[in-house]
Amino acid sequence: MKAGLIQQAYAGEKAKTVAETVAKIEEAAEKGADLVVLQELHQSHYFCITEDTEHFALAQSFEEDVRFWGEIARKSGVVLVTSLFEQRAPGLYHNTAVVFEKDGSVAGKYRKMHIPDDPGFYEKFYFTPGDMGFEPIDTSVGRLGVLICWDQWYPEAARLMALNGADMLIYPTAIGWFDEDSEAEKARQLDAWITIQRSHAVANGIPVISVNRVGKEYDPSGQLDGIRFWGNSFVCGWQGEMLFRGSVHEASADVVEIDMQRVAEVRNIWPFLRDRRIDSYKKLTKRYIFKP
Amino acid sequence: MKAGLIQQAYAGEKAKTVAETVAKIEEAAEKGADLVVLQELHQSHYFCITEDTEHFALAQSFEEDVRFWGEIARKSGVVLVTSLFEQRAPGLYHNTAVVFEKDGSVAGKYRKMHIPDDPGFYEKFYFTPGDMGFEPIDTSVGRLGVLICWDQWYPEAARLMALNGADMLIYPTAIGWFDEDSEAEKARQLDAWITIQRSHAVANGIPVISVNRVGKEYDPSGQLDGIRFWGNSFVCGWQGEMLFRGSVHEASADVVEIDMQRVAEVRNIWPFLRDRRIDSYKKLTKRYIFKP
Repeated sequence: MKAGLIQQAYAGEKAKTVAETVAKIEEAAEKGADLVVLQELHQSHYFCITEDTEHFALAQSFEEDVRFWGEIARKSGVVLVTSLFEQRAPGLYHNTAVVFEKDGSVAGKYRKMHIPDDPGFYEKFYFTPGDMGFEPIDTSVGRLGVLICWDQWYPEAARLMALNGADMLIYPTAIGWFDEDSEAEKARQLDAWITIQRSHAVANGIPVISVNRVGKEYDPSGQLDGIRFWGNSFVCGWQGEMLFRGSVHEASADVVEIDMQRVAEVRNIWPFLRDRRIDSYKKLTKRYIFKP
Repeated sequence: MKAGLIQQAYAGEKAKTVAETVAKIEEAAEKGADLVVLQELHQSHYFCITEDTEHFALAQSFEEDVRFWGEIARKSGVVLVTSLFEQRAPGLYHNTAVVFEKDGSVAGKYRKMHIPDDPGFYEKFYFTPGDMGFEPIDTSVGRLGVLICWDQWYPEAARLMALNGADMLIYPTAIGWFDEDSEAEKARQLDAWITIQRSHAVANGIPVISVNRVGKEYDPSGQLDGIRFWGNSFVCGWQGEMLFRGSVHEASADVVEIDMQRVAEVRNIWPFLRDRRIDSYKKLTKRYIFKP
């Protein structure tokens, strides 16, 4: 199975950005990609950098966007993982990955379950948490455990996707640095981000595809300077081994081969699923247990 | 807080091995350690390399061992994490970490919850799975989330310890390579082992101390060649950043400082515990969910 990863910078407006994405999907398809993964909210700037009701307008084209990307998937002949801003009803919005089959039909969607909220990442203002659970999406290239960005910090999400039969985990994401942070802090953040996602591969015997944006985007409110998205889109294999790691600054369309036959080999030597203490995990549904 | 990590090879018999351990605990105490962590089953060879009922005799001294290590903790003035073979009743055995306070009293114990069983690691023959859950142990140096070896591959165990108020995770362990494996496979295994444990630090905002043995131990049954324990005892901080990494082959008594004030700083910028979807985690208590 060949996976294409499209890492790009926001081009200043939707039409130009989408045109670049389409060109990169075609490039990946020409390189033999069966599956193409786009970054989080790839049609726009990362508008969650500030809270502004005007940005809800970006979600109104959701149905139109779905038709558009379905057509692109069909034309390119790839399974396509998109990341869109979904207006479900006026005043009710989701951060939604829509997955298309090679014929352009909708294979399924996933609504981001874990919603962050930090300075510069005001997602709780824009997105209501997903209500569709951790359900993989069946496609012609496998059963896809699609999750989104903040979900990547949660072992529970990865585990539930694996228990639900996912063949791989896929994370469209938008994460970066504040320029004012120290180099040491930046290094810790990037390394932690790669480590936690590789750990999901290790714990579950499952490959991981993570696609992040590049470029600096400024805070229009002036409250913050902005976010420098750190790229580093990557693929790791069934044991968490790095198969591909993208650039920190450059846009790219890379195609990485994943050996889908490795699953049994790895899970048979590392039979972690065999020994889970499911009789003792009940309190994982608690917010916190300790009472000092 | 200064943590001492005692990494050593089996010296061929219990008395000599224990004497070396005691000398190393004293060395760590002299270097200022408040806490000393020993490797898994540090009194003996890794007897689980083969299934032999004669090895159950090693567990009969459990009460005597507890008294002995309590006295060592008192003499050295450190909180001491030991890893012992516990006979609970004839024919009923546990892989048990006993933690001692600086005054030599027993602070608490943890019985290994996840029990492996692979060629050369026949632990299901020797140890019944722990029945005390994932309960941290309160000591004068903090609330210790003590887990053992195979537990390290389970994000659920780390999470439950964190939700139960653990201040750090501690893994006595015994893991190594088969010489006949390829260098690439060995590298993947060691890297995965470090990655999964660092990920527990990241996911929970908690430091991790892992102590592994060194040296090659042969399979007396001749079925396998043996295990080359890979050392690499390490400490990582609240963001998963490596603070210390030990040698692959050498015995050592290293002391590493952990800044216990970092917890709030890290968890406030990475508020992962805030956003867990506890309403959607119920199926983590299932063995498997997907029905093809």
